[in-house]
Amino acid sequence: MIIVMKPGASSENISSVVNTIQRKGLETHLSQGKEVTIIGVVGDKSKLAYDNLEIFEGVDKIVPVTESYKLSNKKFHPEPIRIQVGNTSIGPDTLTIMAGPCAVETEEQMHLIAQNVKKAGATILRGGAYKPRTSPYAFQGLGEDGLRYLQEAGKETGLATISEVISLDAINTAVKYVDMIQIGARNMQNFFLLKEAGRAGLPVLLKRGLSATIDEWLNAAEYIISEGNPNVILCERGIRTFETATRNTLDISAVPVLKSKTYLPVIVDPSHATGVRAYVSPLAKSAIAAGADGLMIEVHNDPANALSDGPQSLTFAQFNTLCDEIKPFCGLMNRSF
Amino acid sequence: MIIVMKPGASSENISSVVNTIQRKGLETHLSQGKEVTIIGVVGDKSKLAYDNLEIFEGVDKIVPVTESYKLSNKKFHPEPIRIQVGNTSIGPDTLTIMAGPCAVETEEQMHLIAQNVKKAGATILRGGAYKPRTSPYAFQGLGEDGLRYLQEAGKETGLATISEVISLDAINTAVKYVDMIQIGARNMQNFFLLKEAGRAGLPVLLKRGLSATIDEWLNAAEYIISEGNPNVILCERGIRTFETATRNTLDISAVPVLKSKTYLPVIVDPSHATGVRAYVSPLAKSAIAAGADGLMIEVHNDPANALSDGPQSLTFAQFNTLCDEIKPFCGLMNRSF
Amino acid sequence: MIIVMKPGASSENISSVVNTIQRKGLETHLSQGKEVTIIGVVGDKSKLAYDNLEIFEGVDKIVPVTESYKLSNKKFHPEPIRIQVGNTSIGPDTLTIMAGPCAVETEEQMHLIAQNVKKAGATILRGGAYKPRTSPYAFQGLGEDGLRYLQEAGKETGLATISEVISLDAINTAVKYVDMIQIGARNMQNFFLLKEAGRAGLPVLLKRGLSATIDEWLNAAEYIISEGNPNVILCERGIRTFETATRNTLDISAVPVLKSKTYLPVIVDPSHATGVRAYVSPLAKSAIAAGADGLMIEVHNDPANALSDGPQSLTFAQFNTLCDEIKPFCGLMNRSF
Amino acid sequence: MIIVMKPGASSENISSVVNTIQRKGLETHLSQGKEVTIIGVVGDKSKLAYDNLEIFEGVDKIVPVTESYKLSNKKFHPEPIRIQVGNTSIGPDTLTIMAGPCAVETEEQMHLIAQNVKKAGATILRGGAYKPRTSPYAFQGLGEDGLRYLQEAGKETGLATISEVISLDAINTAVKYVDMIQIGARNMQNFFLLKEAGRAGLPVLLKRGLSATIDEWLNAAEYIISEGNPNVILCERGIRTFETATRNTLDISAVPVLKSKTYLPVIVDPSHATGVRAYVSPLAKSAIAAGADGLMIEVHNDPANALSDGPQSLTFAQFNTLCDEIKPFCGLMNRSF
Repeated sequence: MIIVMKPGASSENISSVVNTIQRKGLETHLSQGKEVTIIGVVGDKSKLAYDNLEIFEGVDKIVPVTESYKLSNKKFHPEPIRIQVGNTSIGPDTLTIMAGPCAVETEEQMHLIAQNVKKAGATILRGGAYKPRTSPYAFQGLGEDGLRYLQEAGKETGLATISEVISLDAINTAVKYVDMIQIGARNMQNFFLLKEAGRAGLPVLLKRGLSATIDEWLNAAEYIISEGNPNVILCERGIRTFETATRNTLDISAVPVLKSKTYLPVIVDPSHATGVRAYVSPLAKSAIAAGADGLMIEVHNDPANALSDGPQSLTFAQFNTLCDEIKPFCGLMNRSF
Repeated sequence: MIIVMKPGASSENISSVVNTIQRKGLETHLSQGKEVTIIGVVGDKSKLAYDNLEIFEGVDKIVPVTESYKLSNKKFHPEPIRIQVGNTSIGPDTLTIMAGPCAVETEEQMHLIAQNVKKAGATILRGGAYKPRTSPYAFQGLGEDGLRYLQEAGKETGLATISEVISLDAINTAVKYVDMIQIGARNMQNFFLLKEAGRAGLPVLLKRGLSATIDEWLNAAEYIISEGNPNVILCERGIRTFETATRNTLDISAVPVLKSKTYLPVIVDPSHATGVRAYVSPLAKSAIAAGADGLMIEVHNDPANALSDGPQSLTFAQFNTLCDEIKPFCGLMNRSF
Repeated sequence: MIIVMKPGASSENISSVVNTIQRKGLETHLSQGKEVTIIGVVGDKSKLAYDNLEIFEGVDKIVPVTESYKLSNKKFHPEPIRIQVGNTSIGPDTLTIMAGPCAVETEEQMHLIAQNVKKAGATILRGGAYKPRTSPYAFQGLGEDGLRYLQEAGKETGLATISEVISLDAINTAVKYVDMIQIGARNMQNFFLLKEAGRAGLPVLLKRGLSATIDEWLNAAEYIISEGNPNVILCERGIRTFETATRNTLDISAVPVLKSKTYLPVIVDPSHATGVRAYVSPLAKSAIAAGADGLMIEVHNDPANALSDGPQSLTFAQFNTLCDEIKPFCGLMNRSF
Repeated sequence: MIIVMKPGASSENISSVVNTIQRKGLETHLSQGKEVTIIGVVGDKSKLAYDNLEIFEGVDKIVPVTESYKLSNKKFHPEPIRIQVGNTSIGPDTLTIMAGPCAVETEEQMHLIAQNVKKAGATILRGGAYKPRTSPYAFQGLGEDGLRYLQEAGKETGLATISEVISLDAINTAVKYVDMIQIGARNMQNFFLLKEAGRAGLPVLLKRGLSATIDEWLNAAEYIISEGNPNVILCERGIRTFETATRNTLDISAVPVLKSKTYLPVIVDPSHATGVRAYVSPLAKSAIAAGADGLMIEVHNDPANALSDGPQSLTFAQFNTLCDEIKPFCGLMNRSF
């Protein structure tokens, strides 16, 4: 941690900061320039958590030099990990595809979709049972019935399963049916839910919040991991910007940035990132080329009548084509698919 | 609702859209231009909720013409409302100040702060007992003890009280102690929590999400109101932008925009919007001049040692000065304070 | 300047950085922590401008501690200045109103508008002769004729005048007719134009770029001042964000932030910030309450038929009302108007 | 164009709008719903350019249904084009690499870099002679000398050349030396410069503005094309968002979006998009997989001592590796490289 003093800071101001730090058992190093004085702090900064040095007289700003996330930090765990999800796994040598409808609608639908995405190459079946919708008048999901249909379709086809949770109740129900739970973008900083997800005993797919920085995202992962659950998968799904040609802006750079900061697997969701079916395929290839460990793709038997997010869902034929087209890209990236 | 067809759309494409709409009992009006055909739709659009007309062949885009929120919409309820909160109320002729520490820390602290903010002019005492913090290693709040200290300090001074809730448990506990509950920015689209807040029987202060549009915000209010609770107060607290000179960017225009779209009271929180103590006072005046119904201000007995958000908290002396300085602005806006 | 080394940086890495800095005649101060080493640099950093220390082996990041702008910096010039513009001036004890049409259209129109805005209280007449328009098919301005009409209307009424310039030719023409030139938002980082404006001998109103940080804005001012022209007025006109309820998002915090960083006057343009007539008046009051030195307001004799930006232009009656309403706010802020 | 009336609009309000439109020779189609009335407008909308229907009494909003850009619009020119640049060309079956230093520094440097990037596979040599820099105290480029060194290095190696222009003077000089001119991000809405570039007779690389929407970008291209120059190449170089882990946020979706809206070639610049050397290679592959027609990459003989943007520049060895690694991706995309 570095403390930058204001140009006019008096020596009393500097002493007051230095003494506060030293009283907590940390070391200080002074750099006195012509314009400003800088105080370097060495030692365990958590001891200073409740000394608000920013508002000490004469202090201009505090510059942190180490990241606030530890357990998800590559610095302390340099090798990428592989995470087991049901009968499959996500990790550095594989390209994992999670596919399925935005929302589970009926038992028949789930079986039909499961068979088709399995045939094309998916290994994990997705389907929402608790849908966070902007308007209270939109379809909110089937709840436990939806989870049951998802589980059955998974069993029948041998696909692992994932579904989003939005409350403690939803977690408690979901753990009985699925292999992995998902925290959605709108709940990425629902810290209560993150902690409960950390205690649920299943791998967690953590979607990036609409306006979350990568640092905040890794801190959200830290909430889960610090409850004893190291099995967190990060999912980039687009951020909010001024551009309206796509529903969100896929931050493709997040893939290499995350690869340099954490050992956790990184998945890309081009369906939610763009909201437009025609852009899913080019962005899926793009994500693989950038180094992603997997894709989450919305697939529906009848997109025109989907109860949620139909316009961005692929048909079976489109999903087949996508899986065929990405295969050689996986090959170039040394990933089995 | 308007459906814009692509330039090359065939008459079959147009018929297919028109027939789907008419089968649901709605009317269509065609405008055939040289380049494009437009289909106006008249009737109850909710009947079309699950027909994804966007992906019908030949459709270019769908343009909604009515807002998705109804219960919070000024069109159907033109007059601004006054909302009772404990022994005080928030509404069009008053300037309400909610003040207190970011987090409740001790019983003594709450009494001290309550007395001081009361004396300066606040009518509602704030204090967090469940703190949503970016890092799991930061202070997370005192929980029920915090709520108890808040309640006691409120009783002693005659101030109404408000505290943030982050889970169903927190709501169930909070309703026993406070006069109003708060949904924080990070939970603005935690739809589960919104519904539970709507059922809790207390007025709800709904903070704007970090990257929520005003439309999404009013839809979030709709979740609460549609559970039977019309007592929602909106709180602008800054949005996330590229600018880093302030912690967030206070969207002051949201005040007049909301006043034109809804009848709900609007509060501004300059403390969280800027994160910098020196900017709180000019922005407080600015908010009043823009038409806000109140302010939420962080005040602490000892900001340098506050367990949360010290750098943006005012001292008692600073809060006194602020209250003195805003009085004539309230006068100009015909608001009692 | 501070250099933060990576956790694994070797002592050779550290020496290499330290030696490079010392060879340029600057001092270094080392803080060696358990995790990271920090190097404080004392002396004239411009000597290191072309040593890209960021990519030296073992370097994590460079943290600047002093601003890159000097001439516009309050640290070296603490008192706010007053700038003479024709027969009026802009400064700390005055509230200056610049008003007029977005684009100059005819001679008669300019006379009519000049008389009306003068009567209401404006002291500077605005009118665009060279219009930067998003589409090449929109009205581009009258050029020199427009400037002539503006000048004549100014002379007749005793108003000072301002007009936007978009090229060296436009500057050379404008200086013959107006009292102040304006650099528009889209040209805020047209560094060629900034330098030429700095040499033009007239005060310059520098609008903030659509996505310019306050630091970049002050660096743009530095381009003008470093050509020998200290008479720069900054104009906040809204930034680009995800919110679409207003054309741009007025960053009202920029007013107190600028007041803390520079001595230059600050003007707010609520017309361009919102693009909506109904929001101009509340935001004008809001700007004054936040500490602005003036306002730029679009006024048109017949907004429904304005050649540019009609929807955000006030009628004479609306402008009159606005001027009446802001008077007491100016009084509270100790500004003559 | 569609006009949406407010719920309470009177029949006089509606007639007034309808009559104004019909007087200009356009047709209107009315859809009268229970809540709102919609007016579809058929005919040449440019005739309504100066009727500000938005502020007619009773009007809620205007919804455009056709794009404002015509000459760059794929609707009227469905096939992608190939553009000749010196002795090479950019188009749908090729992957073009433009490489070179951010700024031209010396004659020797340009020869050295030209030879190395040519050997690795680049066909166009880049080098800035007029540098738009945030601070006036940063290196501003060598001007005409820089262009001469660039030209000589191009001639010697057989590489085509490109350099940025920032003023009419710069254009007039550049056309004597280079094969293509570049309009930088900060000048994307310098409409004066766009028009002059359109008249210069050389292909133009148009970089996206920092906060430009794709629509605004295509309108900027329209400025160039409407001066008679159809040879415009679009370059995505990152947009400004809240994320600070990269200098800008590469909007990779812009590639497929542009491919669906225009026939112009699309280039991606991962160097400026990220500002970090380590992310250039993954994003280069990502861009190719997304469908880009080429890449612009900064390469320097000695990045640690580059006068501009060293930290994002690749060494010769790194550029060689990148070119080797992208080859199979070009193969998959059926592009020669």
